[in-house]
Amino acid sequence: MIQSGIQCDERIIMGIDPGTNIMGYAFIGVNGNRAHLIAMGVIDLRKCKDAYMKLGEIFHRVQGLIASFLPDELAIEAPFFGKNVQSMLKLGRAQGVAIAAAISREVPIHEYAPLKIKMAITGNGSASKEQVADMLRRMLNISEKDMPQFADATDALGAAFCHFLQRNDIKTPKKYSSWTDFVSKNSDKVV
Amino acid sequence: MIQSGIQCDERIIMGIDPGTNIMGYAFIGVNGNRAHLIAMGVIDLRKCKDAYMKLGEIFHRVQGLIASFLPDELAIEAPFFGKNVQSMLKLGRAQGVAIAAAISREVPIHEYAPLKIKMAITGNGSASKEQVADMLRRMLNISEKDMPQFADATDALGAAFCHFLQRNDIKTPKKYSSWTDFVSKNSDKVV
Repeated sequence: MIQSGIQCDERIIMGIDPGTNIMGYAFIGVNGNRAHLIAMGVIDLRKCKDAYMKLGEIFHRVQGLIASFLPDELAIEAPFFGKNVQSMLKLGRAQGVAIAAAISREVPIHEYAPLKIKMAITGNGSASKEQVADMLRRMLNISEKDMPQFADATDALGAAFCHFLQRNDIKTPKKYSSWTDFVSKNSDKVV
Repeated sequence: MIQSGIQCDERIIMGIDPGTNIMGYAFIGVNGNRAHLIAMGVIDLRKCKDAYMKLGEIFHRVQGLIASFLPDELAIEAPFFGKNVQSMLKLGRAQGVAIAAAISREVPIHEYAPLKIKMAITGNGSASKEQVADMLRRMLNISEKDMPQFADATDALGAAFCHFLQRNDIKTPKKYSSWTDFVSKNSDKVV
């Protein structure tokens, strides 16, 4: 987890990327039109073999994070619907307990589709996870060494940052007119 | 909701039939090899239009029921997997918040497939909901007028009663050798 200070007058947005094996989370502090990263990390559930133990772990860990950072709002990434019914039920349950943790602390919940998040952050709905993460890193001035190992953490950060942009009706900086323009000016980022 | 007294030395089993529109619940009291109905009813969610309000309602109502009846264990009916991925995600979320309510009160959770419940109660995995309800009514001495309007409540009772039978390793009374035998001896029940 990386972590920086919280100022007492700022609005805190929590982001969650809910998964059944790795659950990403992030907190940003918002002051007017400015946002900064407070913390991000993952809840690693891969060692929980029992399904109910896993759900219990998600519930208590999300409640603990909410108690620690006192978010004013929660933004979650809505899932794709490409999976089979059994895995969707498992994912729904994992999301349900995370949502219940927010409900139990009276944190309002907002949901964003992955396409919406990518679009809000990069201006391109088909941007890769890496491209979204890189844009977030630049916008929030996160050093490369502080970027997390798991994409789930940056996905959660993406949800939180998307909510910040929506709420503040802020457009992404007009440094690039399009993704193609970004790519043409950042050829070193293309792998 | 129908309701009867709880004795202080008995084990309470809560049953839940988790749905997104109607959520059935039931409580039985267990004393050795005997079980009796304490309460059953439904949480009617059809008027909650907002998805998060619905999840909040489930979470708080299930927590409230647990606080009222102090169950020692929770038995839930596992869903069929015949639905589409989007409705499975919704169902999973509804189940997730109900499970979180149990986790928040440290109530252990047990899950039973519908086939297992029907088999344990009637001896026939393909019994209809009405047949299961009728068998439960007889086994728990519930008068016909006290049987609930919604099948979801008796489905929840079925989950709780199935858990009671499993835990006590009690066989259903050997009054009938098979469902065919039951039908042949109860022709008035065949509609």
